[in-house]
Amino acid sequence: MADQPTKYLLAEKDIPTTWYNIQADLPQPLPAVLHPGTQQPIGPADLAPLFPMGLIEQEVSTKRDIDIPGEVIDIYRLWRPSPLYRAHRLEKALGTPARIYYNYEGSSPSGSHKSNTSVPQAYYNKVEGVKRITTETGAGQWGSALAMACQFFGIDCKVFMVKVSYEQKPYRKAMMEMFGAQVSASPSNETECGRAILAKDPKCNGSLGIAISEAVELAVQDPNTKYALGSVLNHVLMHQTIVGIETMQKFKLAGDWPDIIVACTGGGSNFAGIAFPFIGSKLRGESKEARVIAVEPAACPSLTKGKLTYDFGDTGHLTPLVKMHTLGSTFIPPGIHAGGLRYHGMGPLVSHLVHLGEVEPVAVPQLEIFQAAVQFARAEGIIPAPEPSHALAIAIREALKCKEEGKSRAILFNLCGHGHFDMQAYTDYFAGKLRDYEYPAEEVAMALAGLPNVAA
Amino acid sequence: MADQPTKYLLAEKDIPTTWYNIQADLPQPLPAVLHPGTQQPIGPADLAPLFPMGLIEQEVSTKRDIDIPGEVIDIYRLWRPSPLYRAHRLEKALGTPARIYYNYEGSSPSGSHKSNTSVPQAYYNKVEGVKRITTETGAGQWGSALAMACQFFGIDCKVFMVKVSYEQKPYRKAMMEMFGAQVSASPSNETECGRAILAKDPKCNGSLGIAISEAVELAVQDPNTKYALGSVLNHVLMHQTIVGIETMQKFKLAGDWPDIIVACTGGGSNFAGIAFPFIGSKLRGESKEARVIAVEPAACPSLTKGKLTYDFGDTGHLTPLVKMHTLGSTFIPPGIHAGGLRYHGMGPLVSHLVHLGEVEPVAVPQLEIFQAAVQFARAEGIIPAPEPSHALAIAIREALKCKEEGKSRAILFNLCGHGHFDMQAYTDYFAGKLRDYEYPAEEVAMALAGLPNVAA
Repeated sequence: MADQPTKYLLAEKDIPTTWYNIQADLPQPLPAVLHPGTQQPIGPADLAPLFPMGLIEQEVSTKRDIDIPGEVIDIYRLWRPSPLYRAHRLEKALGTPARIYYNYEGSSPSGSHKSNTSVPQAYYNKVEGVKRITTETGAGQWGSALAMACQFFGIDCKVFMVKVSYEQKPYRKAMMEMFGAQVSASPSNETECGRAILAKDPKCNGSLGIAISEAVELAVQDPNTKYALGSVLNHVLMHQTIVGIETMQKFKLAGDWPDIIVACTGGGSNFAGIAFPFIGSKLRGESKEARVIAVEPAACPSLTKGKLTYDFGDTGHLTPLVKMHTLGSTFIPPGIHAGGLRYHGMGPLVSHLVHLGEVEPVAVPQLEIFQAAVQFARAEGIIPAPEPSHALAIAIREALKCKEEGKSRAILFNLCGHGHFDMQAYTDYFAGKLRDYEYPAEEVAMALAGLPNVAA
Repeated sequence: MADQPTKYLLAEKDIPTTWYNIQADLPQPLPAVLHPGTQQPIGPADLAPLFPMGLIEQEVSTKRDIDIPGEVIDIYRLWRPSPLYRAHRLEKALGTPARIYYNYEGSSPSGSHKSNTSVPQAYYNKVEGVKRITTETGAGQWGSALAMACQFFGIDCKVFMVKVSYEQKPYRKAMMEMFGAQVSASPSNETECGRAILAKDPKCNGSLGIAISEAVELAVQDPNTKYALGSVLNHVLMHQTIVGIETMQKFKLAGDWPDIIVACTGGGSNFAGIAFPFIGSKLRGESKEARVIAVEPAACPSLTKGKLTYDFGDTGHLTPLVKMHTLGSTFIPPGIHAGGLRYHGMGPLVSHLVHLGEVEPVAVPQLEIFQAAVQFARAEGIIPAPEPSHALAIAIREALKCKEEGKSRAILFNLCGHGHFDMQAYTDYFAGKLRDYEYPAEEVAMALAGLPNVAA
């Protein structure tokens, strides 16, 4: 029998009682968020029609440790603490001296890390008497997680699901309905924005940008309705830091520490969750330096090919302007299967840390991630979602580098969700129907040319 | 915050090192298995063309504790020990004074308890040099679990999947292929049996009985190929007892003990897994008496409406004769969504314990189980498979009885798998397309009339 454990587990009493706010430790503060009309920094009141004040306060706070409410911790107990695995069997399959670890968030009921933020978001809305939350979803992980959280707190949930996903992923829709959410294909006839788009193009497939516009439109019309976002914003990234705080504890149990931390990034919530507590600890001089790698799809490479500048968060230009790596807010990414990484921009905090040199970005092509996912499943059993398979592919590259160099480094990646609702993607992969996309340089250049002209 | 834990967790070092063989504690021994030609008890040599000797020895052993090989425990570490949950939120939703507990086996990579036996089965085949294992699968849980185990041990895996499921559940097929298995729709052109059936009826939908015949036919033709079964047999039920042994340890952690133990039963492996260690402990006078309830579908009620007699294990009459509760081996159960419970017979050990009065059988209709599943998901987050939702429905009935009587009993049920690959069933339920089936009394009477005439 193995002399080393396969899993490192904490007890329920070890669930962290605070989230970590990296804004407290930044060597340079985050650039201001601007009002698109005045180009002046926005204040909490500008966000109040969309979010409850409890979340707006978190969005702008620079306090390091933010208390997690007891009601939120009680729900976290359903799946937290999450397990840290040592990938003994993958190491053997690769023949590498590397020590590969993965933290697994797929055992949350909605199947991904998204529940870590959907629950506090629903909670703060509940506290302020909100009756309904609207949101958008692409692949469906976020919509499922928010639907579950709203059900737990007795809040109505309305999800606009990008029409192409609505049709391709009926079982994600079924999961949201299981949790009592109302799901509409976007563009829909339920909003002015949706009706206007359908009038022009009745067959429009939808996009996250359009779905955001629909969700926001409903929220601003009704004082009892607010809007929720599953990534990008500071408070969302902060809720996910429970993952990294726990993982640091689990590494202490293992008597080890990562040399390399790898996570995929679309809007940044998964990446921030695992990486920010480690980066903060290093910034404060409390732990040794680790390479931190943010992995994005080669078909949608905002960090590696985009521009760090002010842009809108959505395609419809309803949001404030944020400084981030962007491919241009009118850019529509190619149809890769990792729907959670198909975003034109990047969470401002992640962009800022790349800019500061704390994070190393890298892009991987689609076929490499599916190859990595199959190798992983055959060694470790768990079928990963396409999104975290981006991180896995880079973890494998680094493990093979260790083999070449004869060095045993500790490599950590975050397996943020399972692939049970992505089996069509794997079916297409095995049938040879998937391909790598050329980087859409022309479309990006056009989208970047249309960026708002910001003096700041 | 809650003052009581939500989960009771053991450490990896607490994984049991022996399985529990209830044959050691039976007040009356299990009736012999008979050769269909001679009607004489069969011996190990009769089973050798199908199974490796390591498993045949377990099938007939009356030793109480059977060692789990270290190589098997090393793989169990990927998901074991499994968590025991206290269903605080469901209790609150029901307003019951009952203490409801559920043991969750859905966090195994294949999504159900089936991996607990697929891994040792593949292991004992590997030890004896077997190169290929054939099997049948209906809904796909067993096929997925065996595919994963064969991949881990480097054995080829060939799965005959009932054609109607093959077409309705392409994602279970994709999961098996992810683990490297070869999957064919049954009846297939690959066996004499399949070809004969297709010659008569080219559109035949298939059945478990036919798929078993195809898998057995390939196994007996080739000395390097063996056959594996996911339930019914004594050794399969014994491998699952790791669930109940762990659960007894977890109840000690909780400082509680079940008054009522509920599990669904098709062939009996899930039921045996959770219940046999508790029943054995009570038979030996080591722990207090608990009511043990075996739950089956009203549409396929072998324990509550079948006959306890000798019958074949398969529709094609290739297996030995076993004494069990049966609806007749030619009976084809109605198309309920709980594919794992659509079996004409019952594991002989489960039948024997019902006969001895140690187990109380009950049947539930389909709509009640889906209603229970939705109520559970909305309270606890986890979406259950239709099979364990049978147990859940009875746990809810018992919890409501506690409420009526003002009594606080501890109710344990085994949540043997998640419903991520059953979302079509939930979609149909929400669309009002599911119905309860009348008990097919005439078909059962016809099937029972055709039972073999056994003198024993």
